[in-house]
Amino acid sequence: MPSFILADVAHDLWIEDFAITPADLRLSATHPWSVRKRVLHGGRREGVELIVVDNGVLCFSIIPTRGMGLWKGQYRGDRIGWDSPITDGPVHPAFVNLMSTGGLGWLEGFDELLARAGLESNGAPYEVKTENPDGSASHTTHGLHGKIANIPARYLAVHVGEDPPHEITIEGHVDEARLFGTHIRMMTRISTTPGSNRLVIRDEFVNLKETPSELEILYHWNFGPPFLEEGSRFVAPIQTLVPRNKDAQEAIGHFEVYRGPEPGGPEQVFFLELHAGAGDGRTLAMLRNHAGDKGVVMRFSKAQLPAFSLWKRTGGRREGYVTGLEPSTNYPNPKPFEKARNRVVSLTEGGSYVAETTLEILATRPEVAAVEEEVEALQAQGAPRVHRKPVEPFAEEV
Amino acid sequence: MPSFILADVAHDLWIEDFAITPADLRLSATHPWSVRKRVLHGGRREGVELIVVDNGVLCFSIIPTRGMGLWKGQYRGDRIGWDSPITDGPVHPAFVNLMSTGGLGWLEGFDELLARAGLESNGAPYEVKTENPDGSASHTTHGLHGKIANIPARYLAVHVGEDPPHEITIEGHVDEARLFGTHIRMMTRISTTPGSNRLVIRDEFVNLKETPSELEILYHWNFGPPFLEEGSRFVAPIQTLVPRNKDAQEAIGHFEVYRGPEPGGPEQVFFLELHAGAGDGRTLAMLRNHAGDKGVVMRFSKAQLPAFSLWKRTGGRREGYVTGLEPSTNYPNPKPFEKARNRVVSLTEGGSYVAETTLEILATRPEVAAVEEEVEALQAQGAPRVHRKPVEPFAEEV
Amino acid sequence: MPSFILADVAHDLWIEDFAITPADLRLSATHPWSVRKRVLHGGRREGVELIVVDNGVLCFSIIPTRGMGLWKGQYRGDRIGWDSPITDGPVHPAFVNLMSTGGLGWLEGFDELLARAGLESNGAPYEVKTENPDGSASHTTHGLHGKIANIPARYLAVHVGEDPPHEITIEGHVDEARLFGTHIRMMTRISTTPGSNRLVIRDEFVNLKETPSELEILYHWNFGPPFLEEGSRFVAPIQTLVPRNKDAQEAIGHFEVYRGPEPGGPEQVFFLELHAGAGDGRTLAMLRNHAGDKGVVMRFSKAQLPAFSLWKRTGGRREGYVTGLEPSTNYPNPKPFEKARNRVVSLTEGGSYVAETTLEILATRPEVAAVEEEVEALQAQGAPRVHRKPVEPFAEEV
Repeated sequence: MPSFILADVAHDLWIEDFAITPADLRLSATHPWSVRKRVLHGGRREGVELIVVDNGVLCFSIIPTRGMGLWKGQYRGDRIGWDSPITDGPVHPAFVNLMSTGGLGWLEGFDELLARAGLESNGAPYEVKTENPDGSASHTTHGLHGKIANIPARYLAVHVGEDPPHEITIEGHVDEARLFGTHIRMMTRISTTPGSNRLVIRDEFVNLKETPSELEILYHWNFGPPFLEEGSRFVAPIQTLVPRNKDAQEAIGHFEVYRGPEPGGPEQVFFLELHAGAGDGRTLAMLRNHAGDKGVVMRFSKAQLPAFSLWKRTGGRREGYVTGLEPSTNYPNPKPFEKARNRVVSLTEGGSYVAETTLEILATRPEVAAVEEEVEALQAQGAPRVHRKPVEPFAEEV
Repeated sequence: MPSFILADVAHDLWIEDFAITPADLRLSATHPWSVRKRVLHGGRREGVELIVVDNGVLCFSIIPTRGMGLWKGQYRGDRIGWDSPITDGPVHPAFVNLMSTGGLGWLEGFDELLARAGLESNGAPYEVKTENPDGSASHTTHGLHGKIANIPARYLAVHVGEDPPHEITIEGHVDEARLFGTHIRMMTRISTTPGSNRLVIRDEFVNLKETPSELEILYHWNFGPPFLEEGSRFVAPIQTLVPRNKDAQEAIGHFEVYRGPEPGGPEQVFFLELHAGAGDGRTLAMLRNHAGDKGVVMRFSKAQLPAFSLWKRTGGRREGYVTGLEPSTNYPNPKPFEKARNRVVSLTEGGSYVAETTLEILATRPEVAAVEEEVEALQAQGAPRVHRKPVEPFAEEV
Repeated sequence: MPSFILADVAHDLWIEDFAITPADLRLSATHPWSVRKRVLHGGRREGVELIVVDNGVLCFSIIPTRGMGLWKGQYRGDRIGWDSPITDGPVHPAFVNLMSTGGLGWLEGFDELLARAGLESNGAPYEVKTENPDGSASHTTHGLHGKIANIPARYLAVHVGEDPPHEITIEGHVDEARLFGTHIRMMTRISTTPGSNRLVIRDEFVNLKETPSELEILYHWNFGPPFLEEGSRFVAPIQTLVPRNKDAQEAIGHFEVYRGPEPGGPEQVFFLELHAGAGDGRTLAMLRNHAGDKGVVMRFSKAQLPAFSLWKRTGGRREGYVTGLEPSTNYPNPKPFEKARNRVVSLTEGGSYVAETTLEILATRPEVAAVEEEVEALQAQGAPRVHRKPVEPFAEEV
């Protein structure tokens, strides 16, 4: 398998620009794929590295500088992603102060198709008060969604499968580490097959400590038009549905249907358990458009990612008209809440945790219908259990 | 009008070095003007972009990387600006932690002739305590003078007027934006006419949200020697004068006269209302030297910038011997204080707010005398109302 | 003395790459020394400047971007330094948020052989609560070990002595400055003689304010294997020994002997006063390996650096198996504690403070034995006074 290492701090290696096509490898290609890497300039994107992978029909960009998140994608003319109020991204972490606005600084850089939230913690910011021996107190703020989305990759490589269909893989390693703290290496492999409608993200989280460690990871996949529009629907094999708070509670009766863009529109988050295949534990969730001829599908294993959050933010088009399909190890509550409910992953000494998510893009009515049938088949395991207000152990009862 | 776009993140355009003179445009010029742009290196200025505009007699530098502030200027041999304790600037925002020292981090980068303060808030840092449903509390610090001075421009262009006198304009766009927060685009045009003693800064603040938004903007114009010296005077058509706090209160009787540099010297801030022209609402403020043969004049519209602060910090020469002439939408109190007194600008959906300040440099006695006459004419509307201690609604009463 | 200025922001000078050898200067050299400077790329080291000095037998790297700290060294095949959990360093300050994790953000960048802690304050983070006139409160966090290790040098030069043995000196200036705050320039000279086993760091801290200022400086010298191993010993002429807290208290009886790497192993800090030469005030401390044929020696003046901390952190090899030999002006308690005990340096107007530390590497049994004799000679001044628990005025009593 031809491999090209683009960055490796351990060996003092870094390549600013890179481009490869089948012709460069003397491969015959039914799909004119390419991989290109460069450094962006100007404004808050100054110095951000970007990799653009085009598999011939599906194109997407990866941001090594932002923890190997995905910036934007495109499939047969349809944009994959959303319009953040941030329009000068991808934003270099040097311009993001995670501690600003009471720990909400993460939002200063948030404009991605996929932003990972973790690894030491994810979810809402929270503050811990410590009483000191001398009677004074200290306050520690743990910011929204953790650090991983703002740490640049220490290692970056491009792999091309030797045999047809010549799968393309971008590998990246990101360390979240400090003395006396978390020391987890995320090794991600982002793959796509030329000509396909899907990309697979396989993350391995390796505990580099010699003692047990904790992990929280949430995949903040975000979609706007054309998949999101008035009448779009969320489709998934729901086992349990819980509104996160009062704002979501009001919409519980029609949570699966989307409104059109609405200036000042609501933010609503729902916590879900999904049914999964009995044999393989695999499950899925789809966002489909009103007509049912376009959709994005998220596939993953419930064994790896048992929690799922549906984030609806149907604000005005420029304010954030977006929905998040977010498989995760835990619900995005403050970590102490999750830990008390046994939803924080324990990594053994030298142990690791693997999580894989697949994004699939649908562009025809039959494709959408086929996924709806898949969901129905899983739903046959039992009707959704719908809670009309926040309940334990999913959310804080109000 | 010949235009040169130097940066535009929306179109992935960025030019590292740029220089233009009349000869490049085949223009005949009575004044040998030039515009040059480059990137600075070393220390805390690494990566800072700087534009130097020389109109033939007035020269000034613009810092796109620091929110289109002005770094330093020069006019007929006189320095315009001040000596900050920071002598390795202009400082890249990556080296400024706005949250440090209880929200005073802004000072780690403050060395400019003009630093804007805003846009979500400006003024003194303040902390908001929130009681959570579970009984815990969270504390959010809003830092001194907001974020805009530490956000790099997303768009940068140089325009040269087609017809004599070939006005030179530097245009820059800076976004202060985040999901669920402020989303204002500042579009600034900094202009000067070759051979003139003035520059005009016209800022348009566009609310890109589809819902109403709030704005605070303060123009922190700062001057040291030779305009500031022992016996220098502040000259303006004063309607109301209020000391900000006890420190200023003591000096209220001679607030308009400056002392020489004094190690450990005082900081005093005065809040003012100025008289303005009945027809056009325009007003002005001047700092003139002792002899009355040098001065800097700030001209603006009271309709746009109704508040004015005079900042006196007559410390030692290396500690900060400086005065600020600061027209603004609000007084630099914590935002909740200003909001309660209706001094926070409301931007309608898609609405915008324009503020223009003109800096004029005077180099002769007649020029200074002429401005003093202008001030006197406006002062004729009424004698200054001088409060000897902080009073509502300007400042917190003590 | 041939000098090469590599950076000088005051004169807009910066050189990206530099290399020099004796041949370049037409010097005959018994030791093939060299000095090289370059910029690192990739991950969190993007943009970090690094100088590698090789004196022929002793090699070490300096990080101008991280306050002129030392990154790593090597002597006759032995590594000098330690294995931090951070393995993608040296870390650019833009990726270090000193305010994160309740003021422990410093640890996000800590992987150095020598990191200075200071200058406004050093030691454990602490929070100051201020009651405001309006009844509200503000909290200011002062982060662990201050700012100096995360400020890039404003001036950088290489000097080579004209006469044999052609001493090599790297000079760097780092400013810690802000309006109304500290304004100290650290002028460091890091020197080594070709072929020698030592390097000398001479720092001058100049108060650029025109009023008195305060200074705290601690030299966080850190060593791992092969000097640190099971059975390694700390050797110094101890006058007073105090455990910092309960964790250290338990180990007081065998504080000078090191355990092997132990996953989850303890962190223990001891505060010491050392005996010093009656005439010159000079003293020393050594870490020697089990066999007594390798050692690192820290030499300094007790008059300059009266406090000494021994930091033992014998965790797993990848978690941080490391010990710190830390001469300093004060103990690394929160600054208010130190100030109340008169251990904060007062700098007069324009005054300065000099501190020099010498690192010496020993590679044979006789060298180690000779240093042990030196220590014994000083120890003859009196037996160590060992406190079995934290006592005033060194540490907070528990």
